[in-house]
Amino acid sequence: MARVDYPGVVGELIGELKRLPGVGPRSAERIAIWLLQNERANPLELAAALHTAKTEVRSCPLCGFFATSTGCSVCDDTRRDDARLCVVEQPAEVLPIERSGAFNGRYHCLGGKLSPLDNVTPEDLRIGELVRRVSASAEPVEVVLAVGADVEGEATASYLADVLRGKNCQVTRLAQGLPAGGGLEFADDLTLTRAFEGRKNF
Amino acid sequence: MARVDYPGVVGELIGELKRLPGVGPRSAERIAIWLLQNERANPLELAAALHTAKTEVRSCPLCGFFATSTGCSVCDDTRRDDARLCVVEQPAEVLPIERSGAFNGRYHCLGGKLSPLDNVTPEDLRIGELVRRVSASAEPVEVVLAVGADVEGEATASYLADVLRGKNCQVTRLAQGLPAGGGLEFADDLTLTRAFEGRKNF
Repeated sequence: MARVDYPGVVGELIGELKRLPGVGPRSAERIAIWLLQNERANPLELAAALHTAKTEVRSCPLCGFFATSTGCSVCDDTRRDDARLCVVEQPAEVLPIERSGAFNGRYHCLGGKLSPLDNVTPEDLRIGELVRRVSASAEPVEVVLAVGADVEGEATASYLADVLRGKNCQVTRLAQGLPAGGGLEFADDLTLTRAFEGRKNF
Repeated sequence: MARVDYPGVVGELIGELKRLPGVGPRSAERIAIWLLQNERANPLELAAALHTAKTEVRSCPLCGFFATSTGCSVCDDTRRDDARLCVVEQPAEVLPIERSGAFNGRYHCLGGKLSPLDNVTPEDLRIGELVRRVSASAEPVEVVLAVGADVEGEATASYLADVLRGKNCQVTRLAQGLPAGGGLEFADDLTLTRAFEGRKNF
């Protein structure tokens, strides 16, 4: 018996949606049907937004953040503190730091973290650009390593500290300890160890 | 202090993704960044699939299932039983019935169910088309009401049974009872009542 299925074009749309992170086969089908049937859906506007974003967004050659042909909103901002440079793994990590308001300097996005298991070596990251940036600075720079507290993040931080030693900069690293709002009963051993190591006079 | 944000085109993409069912603000941001950064992402192919599906897919004027300019895969299938017509609420519900293999007749998609609270009246559904289809049939038709077992589904089934009374058809309704694989401890009162009412000789 010949089974009925969606027309091929709908199947292709479901296939593309299924590839998105966090979207499974059933969600993909539900989203596709919603896009084609719901009167509030704008599939053509979504298609146009995808096309525009993909063709217009590039990586800033200096800092690695998202940029367009009109420039990079971090590098073009004249009110930032040139004496501080925050190193993050991914450009998307600039946003939570900006939302916190804790930092007003420049950024440098590595594009990843050192991970021998995934074949990510120093040459794959924007480390050469970072060293050139620090060396080219007229005044001494504080390089804040805002990489993750996982194994690869630690390895990346150690490597960067080695590479930047003797350069015109001071290297610092984000504090590790209890997350805000987190009770002691939810803290793991390593977090507690770091929190004790980093304790301060009160 | 001027806060950094994504370039406007990325913000627009996140805005469109956020409108999809089951996709919240954080998922939308994650999907957008994945689409723009991951080497396995194909945003332009997703855009093309959206565009093609939206412009090519239409509703079959006879049965209401998804159709393209080349026709409707249900109505064009000559091996189906013309004497059975399965009435479903939404075209997407044809697929699970087809996957079950339990039915080999024709379909009629209403486009919704009667719901006075949502201002869905008989005129909003493809009920006139259903009556014309049944009346136009040369042989008597079994109309299988495969609408949901919720309040609106019951109301829709009752209304359809009234409208089709005296026409050249026999109206049946899907059985209600225990779902396959479901133990008695998970069945609610109404399901158990329906299962007792519909009990059969064994």
